[in-house]
Amino acid sequence: MRNLILTLIIAFTIISCTEKKADKTVETSTINKQDSTQIKTVFDASLTEGQAYEWLRDLTQNIGGRLSGSPEAQQAVEWGEQLMKDQGFENVRLQAIMVPHWVRGEKEKAFYKIGNELRDVPVCALGGSIATPNQGITAEVIEVKSLEEAIAKGEELRGKIVFFNRPFDATLINTFKAYGGCVDQRYSGAKTCGEFGAVGVIVRSMTLSMDDNPHTGTMSYGDIPANQYTPTAAISTNAAAQLSLDLKNNPNLKFYLKQSCETLPDAPSFNVIGEITGSQYPNKYITVGGHLDSWDLGEGAHDDGAGIVQSLEVLRLLKETGIKPKHTIRVVLFMNEENGTRGAKKYAEEAKFKKEIHVAALESDSGGFTPRGFSYDGNEENKELFLSWKSLLEPYGLHDWTVGYSGADIMPLKDGTITLSGYKPDSQRYFDYHHTSTDTFDKVNRRELQLGAAAMTSLVYLMDKYLDVSTVKQ
Amino acid sequence: MRNLILTLIIAFTIISCTEKKADKTVETSTINKQDSTQIKTVFDASLTEGQAYEWLRDLTQNIGGRLSGSPEAQQAVEWGEQLMKDQGFENVRLQAIMVPHWVRGEKEKAFYKIGNELRDVPVCALGGSIATPNQGITAEVIEVKSLEEAIAKGEELRGKIVFFNRPFDATLINTFKAYGGCVDQRYSGAKTCGEFGAVGVIVRSMTLSMDDNPHTGTMSYGDIPANQYTPTAAISTNAAAQLSLDLKNNPNLKFYLKQSCETLPDAPSFNVIGEITGSQYPNKYITVGGHLDSWDLGEGAHDDGAGIVQSLEVLRLLKETGIKPKHTIRVVLFMNEENGTRGAKKYAEEAKFKKEIHVAALESDSGGFTPRGFSYDGNEENKELFLSWKSLLEPYGLHDWTVGYSGADIMPLKDGTITLSGYKPDSQRYFDYHHTSTDTFDKVNRRELQLGAAAMTSLVYLMDKYLDVSTVKQ
Repeated sequence: MRNLILTLIIAFTIISCTEKKADKTVETSTINKQDSTQIKTVFDASLTEGQAYEWLRDLTQNIGGRLSGSPEAQQAVEWGEQLMKDQGFENVRLQAIMVPHWVRGEKEKAFYKIGNELRDVPVCALGGSIATPNQGITAEVIEVKSLEEAIAKGEELRGKIVFFNRPFDATLINTFKAYGGCVDQRYSGAKTCGEFGAVGVIVRSMTLSMDDNPHTGTMSYGDIPANQYTPTAAISTNAAAQLSLDLKNNPNLKFYLKQSCETLPDAPSFNVIGEITGSQYPNKYITVGGHLDSWDLGEGAHDDGAGIVQSLEVLRLLKETGIKPKHTIRVVLFMNEENGTRGAKKYAEEAKFKKEIHVAALESDSGGFTPRGFSYDGNEENKELFLSWKSLLEPYGLHDWTVGYSGADIMPLKDGTITLSGYKPDSQRYFDYHHTSTDTFDKVNRRELQLGAAAMTSLVYLMDKYLDVSTVKQ
Repeated sequence: MRNLILTLIIAFTIISCTEKKADKTVETSTINKQDSTQIKTVFDASLTEGQAYEWLRDLTQNIGGRLSGSPEAQQAVEWGEQLMKDQGFENVRLQAIMVPHWVRGEKEKAFYKIGNELRDVPVCALGGSIATPNQGITAEVIEVKSLEEAIAKGEELRGKIVFFNRPFDATLINTFKAYGGCVDQRYSGAKTCGEFGAVGVIVRSMTLSMDDNPHTGTMSYGDIPANQYTPTAAISTNAAAQLSLDLKNNPNLKFYLKQSCETLPDAPSFNVIGEITGSQYPNKYITVGGHLDSWDLGEGAHDDGAGIVQSLEVLRLLKETGIKPKHTIRVVLFMNEENGTRGAKKYAEEAKFKKEIHVAALESDSGGFTPRGFSYDGNEENKELFLSWKSLLEPYGLHDWTVGYSGADIMPLKDGTITLSGYKPDSQRYFDYHHTSTDTFDKVNRRELQLGAAAMTSLVYLMDKYLDVSTVKQ
C-alpha cells in the first residue's frame, strides 16, 4: 500500500505540477537515493555500536536525579563537559547561568483518618512550593475539578485544603495532549486558591497510570502576595481516587500534610555546549539538545537523560559515519528546563547578542521511546521541504510528521526564520514515569533509545544539507 | 502532510480511475465518516473501561506459565471458558485435542572452567529436547555460526558440543525479521548435528538483548533416528559472548551440561471457543484469537497472554459499543502454538469437516505493545479494500499495513478466499522477553494493550461490514 501511495503521489505530482515543481521532484527523487543510503548507514551504526544507552546508564546510575542547583546537577555538568571532550567535539564550553535553587527537604508526609483507619497518602511537594509549618497543617478538604470551579467556590476555600482532582482524558491517543489538559491544576492551583485563604493545595498526580507514586513538577505563585502562598503537593492517583471516595461519605475528614521544602537563593550553574565546525558555513548553526537537569525523585532517565544522550549521540554518529556538515552542528545540554528554563533563555539571549545565525534547532524531551515522528515549527517556505523527509524516515517507524510546538528549550530561538523541530517518540508510557521515582534507567530500552538517536541524526543531516540558507536572517 | 497526501490520492483516484472504481471511492468516503465515529467509540471504551489488562493480570498472576499438557494449561482452559461464560458469549465450548507433553524437569546446569575460574552458564533446555545422562555431559565445544557451517565441519563434530552462535542482525528494524534469520539454529541445530555424532547442542538465545536470561523455544529432531538425538539447550547472550571469547584462548575447554527434561505421552487438552452469533450470516465466521499455552519460564504475558485477552476483549467491546455483527464473530483461544500448533490444526480441520465458511481470521501473537499496524494475507480481490482501512486507523498509530504472513494459529485456515490478518504492535522490545523468565505481567503497559484490543475490534468491525461474502467459497 505504501508503495502504491508513493507511486500515486509521484505520478500525480509529475502530471499536474508546474515545470519548476516537476524539476524539483526529479531532483528530490535522485537525491533521495543517496539520502536513504546515508540514513541507513546512520541507523546501522546506531543500532550496532551506539553509545547513547551506555552513556545513559552512566548518567543515571552514577549521578541520578539532578535538580537545578543540586550537587548532582553540577556533577552532570562536569560529566557532559568531559564526555564531549572525550568524543573530540570542538569548542567545548560551559555557559554560565543562575538557576532557581529549590530543595525538597525531608520526605513529605500526608494522611487522614476514616474512623480508626489511617489512610497514608503518597505525597510529594511540588517544585517551588513553600513548606508547611513544622507541625504540618490539618484541615478539611474541598475537592474541585478545575481552576474555574475553585474560583467559583471563592470564600468557601478559606481555611481548607483544596484538592484538584481532574484526571487525564484517557481517550486522547497522544498522552501529551491529556497532560496539557490537566497541568494547569498543578501549575496554577496554589496561585488560584491563595487569595481565597486556602491553607493548602493538593493535586492529583499528572499521569494516566493508577498507582502509588506521587509525581512532582513545577508550580508558580505568579504575582500573588507572599502572605497568600500556600504549601502545595501532588498525591498519587490511587490516593486521589480513594480520597475522592472517602470525601463522599466523610465530607469533614481532616487531612494532614507536612513538607519542609524551601527555595534558596539562586545558584550558579551551566549549559554545556560542544560542536562540529561546519565546512561551508562555520558561523551558521544547527543546534540539537535536551535538558540536563531533572526532578529529584527518580533518575531522570526518560526525562530527559534520554534526550541528553541522544543529542550527544547525534554528533558522535555524524563523525562516525563520515558526514561532514556544512553548518556548525552544536549540541547543547540545557540546564534548568524543569523549573525555570533559565538555560534555554540564556542560550537564546547570548545567540542574539552575538548575532549568531541559527538555521535550525532540534529538541528531544519526550522520552526515549520507540520513534513515531518529528514536529515542525518554522516558516511556510521550509514546511513542505521538511515534511517531504517523512518518506525517508517512514521505513524506520517515523510516520507522524506534524506541525506544532517543538520544545521548551529551543522555543526562545524562534524568530520567524529558524526551523524548530521536536523528536516525537511513542507517548503511551511517558507519563507513567514522568517526574516520579520510577523514571529510572531500567525503563529505557536500548534499541528504542538508539533508534531515536539515529532518527535525530538523520534529521540533522537533512536539515544541514537542504535547509535554504537564504531563508535565514543574515 | 498527511492531509495533503490524502487529498492527492483522492484527487488522482477520481481523475484516473474507471467509473466503477470512482463510484466505489465516493461510497467509501461517505462510509468512512460513520466508520471513524464507530471506531472512536471502540477506542474510547477500550481506553476508559477496558478489561483486557485486568484479565491479563489474573491469567499471569494466578496461573502463570502454561506449557501444553501442564496443570497450568488446564487451569487456563477453565479460566478462559469461565470468562467467556461470565461475559455472556454464546456457544462457549471446549474443542478437544491431544497435545505434546514435554516437561523440563529439574533446573538445568551448565558451566566450564578457565584455569581455576568457574564460569556458570545460564542455560535452559529447548522444548522437545532429550535429557542428558544423569551425570550430565562434558565435552569440548565447537563454535559455528550456521547449520551450513556445522554440516561442513562434518566428522569434526563427533563427541563435541556444537555451539550455534549467530546473533540477530541488529540493523533490521523489524525484530521478527532478525528472529527469522536466526531461529533455524535453535529449531534444527540438533537435527543437523546428530548424524555427525555431536553429543550436545547449545544455542545462543534468540534475542537482541545482551543479558543473563536463557530463552527457550521449540526444536525438532525431524526424521533422524532416535540414537542420533542430542540434548539441546539455549544459553544466555552474555554467556554466549563470553564463551566465544574464551574459546579463542582455550579451544579445548570442557563444557558441562545437565538437563533432565522429558517428552511424556501426548496429553488431552482443549481450544476454548466462544461466539457472538451473526445477525445476517450466522453460519459464516470471523475468527479472532491468540494462543493460550505459553512457555514455562515466565508468565506468558506478552507471548501470548496479551493476544488472548485482546481477543476476548474484541467480543466484549463489540457488545459494549452496540455493534451487531452480520457474521458470527468467534474468539478462539488456541492451545499448543508453542510446540506443535495442534490446536490450530484441529480448529482448521474441524472447520473444514463441518464445511464452516470462514470469511476472515485475525491473530494477535506479537506481544501487547503499542500498535503499529496489521498484516494482510488473503486474495487479490480483497487486498485493496483491506489496505484502504489504513486511513481509518492511522489516527491511532496504525501506519504499517503490509501484505504477508499473519500468524501460526490462523494459517491452517488459508484456502484462497479467507482474509487472514495479524495484529502488528511495535516489535522493539518483544524479543527481550520472548520465551524467557522475564515475560511477566509488569512488562505489559495497560494503554498499549488496550489500544491493541481497540485496533483489533475496529478491524473485525470493518471486516464484518465490508468483506464481500461472494468472494468466500460457498
